Amino acid sequence: MDGLTLEQIVARLGGELVGNPQTRVERIQPIGSADRTGITFLSRPKLRAQIAQSQAAAIILPAALKGELPPSGNAIFAQDPYLYYARLSQWFWRLRQPAFEAGRHPLAHIDPSAQVSDLARVDAFAVIEAGARIAEGVHVGSGSHVGRDAVIGADSVLHPRSVVGWGCILGARCVLQSGAVVGSDGFGYARDAEGAGVKIAQVGIAVLADDVEVGANSTIDRGALDNTEIGTGVKIDNLVQIAHNVRIGAHTALAGCVGVSGSAQIGAYCFIGGGVGIAGHLSIADGVVIGGMSLVSRSVHQPGMYTGAFPLDTHANWERNAATVRQLYQLRDRIRSLEHQLASLKTDQTT
Amino acid sequence: MDGLTLEQIVARLGGELVGNPQTRVERIQPIGSADRTGITFLSRPKLRAQIAQSQAAAIILPAALKGELPPSGNAIFAQDPYLYYARLSQWFWRLRQPAFEAGRHPLAHIDPSAQVSDLARVDAFAVIEAGARIAEGVHVGSGSHVGRDAVIGADSVLHPRSVVGWGCILGARCVLQSGAVVGSDGFGYARDAEGAGVKIAQVGIAVLADDVEVGANSTIDRGALDNTEIGTGVKIDNLVQIAHNVRIGAHTALAGCVGVSGSAQIGAYCFIGGGVGIAGHLSIADGVVIGGMSLVSRSVHQPGMYTGAFPLDTHANWERNAATVRQLYQLRDRIRSLEHQLASLKTDQTT
Amino acid sequence: MDGLTLEQIVARLGGELVGNPQTRVERIQPIGSADRTGITFLSRPKLRAQIAQSQAAAIILPAALKGELPPSGNAIFAQDPYLYYARLSQWFWRLRQPAFEAGRHPLAHIDPSAQVSDLARVDAFAVIEAGARIAEGVHVGSGSHVGRDAVIGADSVLHPRSVVGWGCILGARCVLQSGAVVGSDGFGYARDAEGAGVKIAQVGIAVLADDVEVGANSTIDRGALDNTEIGTGVKIDNLVQIAHNVRIGAHTALAGCVGVSGSAQIGAYCFIGGGVGIAGHLSIADGVVIGGMSLVSRSVHQPGMYTGAFPLDTHANWERNAATVRQLYQLRDRIRSLEHQLASLKTDQTT
Repeated sequence: MDGLTLEQIVARLGGELVGNPQTRVERIQPIGSADRTGITFLSRPKLRAQIAQSQAAAIILPAALKGELPPSGNAIFAQDPYLYYARLSQWFWRLRQPAFEAGRHPLAHIDPSAQVSDLARVDAFAVIEAGARIAEGVHVGSGSHVGRDAVIGADSVLHPRSVVGWGCILGARCVLQSGAVVGSDGFGYARDAEGAGVKIAQVGIAVLADDVEVGANSTIDRGALDNTEIGTGVKIDNLVQIAHNVRIGAHTALAGCVGVSGSAQIGAYCFIGGGVGIAGHLSIADGVVIGGMSLVSRSVHQPGMYTGAFPLDTHANWERNAATVRQLYQLRDRIRSLEHQLASLKTDQTT
Repeated sequence: MDGLTLEQIVARLGGELVGNPQTRVERIQPIGSADRTGITFLSRPKLRAQIAQSQAAAIILPAALKGELPPSGNAIFAQDPYLYYARLSQWFWRLRQPAFEAGRHPLAHIDPSAQVSDLARVDAFAVIEAGARIAEGVHVGSGSHVGRDAVIGADSVLHPRSVVGWGCILGARCVLQSGAVVGSDGFGYARDAEGAGVKIAQVGIAVLADDVEVGANSTIDRGALDNTEIGTGVKIDNLVQIAHNVRIGAHTALAGCVGVSGSAQIGAYCFIGGGVGIAGHLSIADGVVIGGMSLVSRSVHQPGMYTGAFPLDTHANWERNAATVRQLYQLRDRIRSLEHQLASLKTDQTT
Repeated sequence: MDGLTLEQIVARLGGELVGNPQTRVERIQPIGSADRTGITFLSRPKLRAQIAQSQAAAIILPAALKGELPPSGNAIFAQDPYLYYARLSQWFWRLRQPAFEAGRHPLAHIDPSAQVSDLARVDAFAVIEAGARIAEGVHVGSGSHVGRDAVIGADSVLHPRSVVGWGCILGARCVLQSGAVVGSDGFGYARDAEGAGVKIAQVGIAVLADDVEVGANSTIDRGALDNTEIGTGVKIDNLVQIAHNVRIGAHTALAGCVGVSGSAQIGAYCFIGGGVGIAGHLSIADGVVIGGMSLVSRSVHQPGMYTGAFPLDTHANWERNAATVRQLYQLRDRIRSLEHQLASLKTDQTT
């Protein structure tokens, strides 16, 4: 593990280097704890005071701070240091990974009718069912399940114990974290005359476009008749539930514990905060941000930030306020009554 | 895949057919996108305008719309088209499935003391532990785990990677979606003198009656001393948590991301909306509907619909209103004071 | 299964025995349904009326109730009957378990470079990757996955289908319930110029101290650069999400469906109620209790109980009150205006 020189880094990722191009860095470290082996970054100019304290071998700085230098004398000035860090982090990551070795573990179960690229890798105890297609560069982690006729696009990674149900389609470079389930049955039942649920066969599929990432133990239902569709570059955190027939536009991100109900449509470039619930059969415009733990019960037509969450308070205060919330529309009526009374009182005095 | 004639459909599922009994349909399609190969349905009379637009080979209509016909001239009139659709969807589903083949995959691990019906199917990498009993028609999906002495009733389906813990009991025709866990330990600890948690062995089981479905990655804890009991026909969506000693009555449905705390009792024919939290040791009557994202912190004794969720607003408005919520009981006091002042002012004027 | 005599119990667990030391009990039972084969307990003195009704062979009572006796005449008086019950439940549990048998199932996949203690047990279809270390007494359940270089401390239990990602560290006596995932990638992306997410390689690990329990299908992300750290004795219920770089202090408990956002710090001896959401980059002091379904959006510096949740009401009332919540700061302004008007009215009258 010899690391990278600053010269190598700038040659590939751009930015303007000030200092010694031969300085070698072995890893990325947080600015507060970086040492002489590491490179660090600072994305917010208002934290510039930290530059002088950093023991890092080099630092990635916003172009706006041009002229500032850390004790090491080495800096890379970039338009967006956070983005620069992301790209550099991937480079270091690849350096440290064991080389990707294609092949099929002898203890994987692959149906003879499945088409698995010779350039794909299938680990122990993985199952690939009949008719499934696995493209080049795909890594099917141990104990993962790829259902009948499912399609996994090039360079996708199924972390151990993830599941792709029958017929579902993943684009290129998708990532399923462990325990993720794509293509579970949607929650659809009719009620018979006695009120018992009669299952509606869920025959649509789930389609993930390219570059979608699905977090650990998150679930994406297949469609009932039509499909569930997740757009290019959508990022889904852990323990998120996406119900049947949901559509999510490109590059939208959903934080942990979000639940999206059936047939909801979410636009592109949205950010859905942690724990948010989205009701069914509504639509959210592009560029909408929903604050954590909010319930979206109606369509949101305009971009912007929206929130709905009861403010935290001491339990004692909360109890008193919550009791009052339950009388709120009566309070409103009492205010209205006071206003009327006061107005007539004034009129009386004037006359 | 030759599909079904309308005559065949009506012969089995009932309803009144108008049109050509020999018309053949290959699938069910949504009303808006159906073509000549498909049958569709319309459940709400107020959407009747869509009938004239539909290109479907046939349409299932409410009996109340008797007399209306789509361009194809083929309609089945049924009391409940949505229920009709559900039953027909199951029929099409079975037509398309590969025939159920009983048997034990050579790479399944089945303890010699387990009793697995010769008419059951156990897929690769599934584990059936000592003393477990698997009835006829059961499908244990790949990588599933059935613990010691657990019992799986006839025709139940364990989708890949689902888990049934030791001793737990599933009735007939239960379905566990992938990643579902039945029989995890409940969350029970005493605190020792230093405040450390001392685990309470969870020795009850989880009992699922017939026709229960559990969604992907949902969890149902075993009981602490007594059992956790899920009634006949209960339907549980994805990512739902059912804690120890909970009891749920027949035909209740729980939408995604619901959490039910320990020893709560939920009645029959309830509907618990997505993301709802139910506190422990309370009871909910039969026929209760809880709106999404609500917290049920006290027992609910009367059927009906209940909700508690902060309304969504622009973030700026929310911030102002949320700040006011924290002063709410003081506002109430100020209103009361205004009322008193105004009353005495009036009294003064009268006297 | 011959059970335990009261004499044996008191000899090991302490407490003061009144009655027949040779009375033998076979199990612990709830006070209401206990019979002559069982021992039960009563922790709250105010429920003392139940003592006279209990058919149990013996009862564990609070020392404060010294003098009271059940019909059986057998009681153990303990400072904390609930804690006593917890310890006794573990004892009964061990009595009933098949003896722990170390060994490696022939259908487990263990990399030759992994160090697995001869005193550990690895079940069928488990995977232990290169460089991993498994200490004595560890039970790796069927289908579990231990990633490259991960470390599992002595006597820890990985229930079937749980996952420990590469490099992550579990202390001694940790328990992962089925489906738990430790070491999934954190949710970290930069945005490129077009707004697409660029993944930040997550190179930190997750470190669980001794005696940590993680519930079924819960997820704990690895750190981005630094580590995610879970303190000694922390208990995590089912379907809980812990994001990257979170730190949780010793003996804190998190109930089901909690979500903790990135870099949040939670103190020791806290209790986080079910469904709570904790925003990122904040800190919660030691000894804080958060009521169920609350959102913690700012740091909490003082111990105590805090809550924020919209109160449940009939749906009709909720609709009216929720509408008023959205006008709340306007109501506040109207109250202020009324106060001013009334004050000037009074002034007018006085002058």
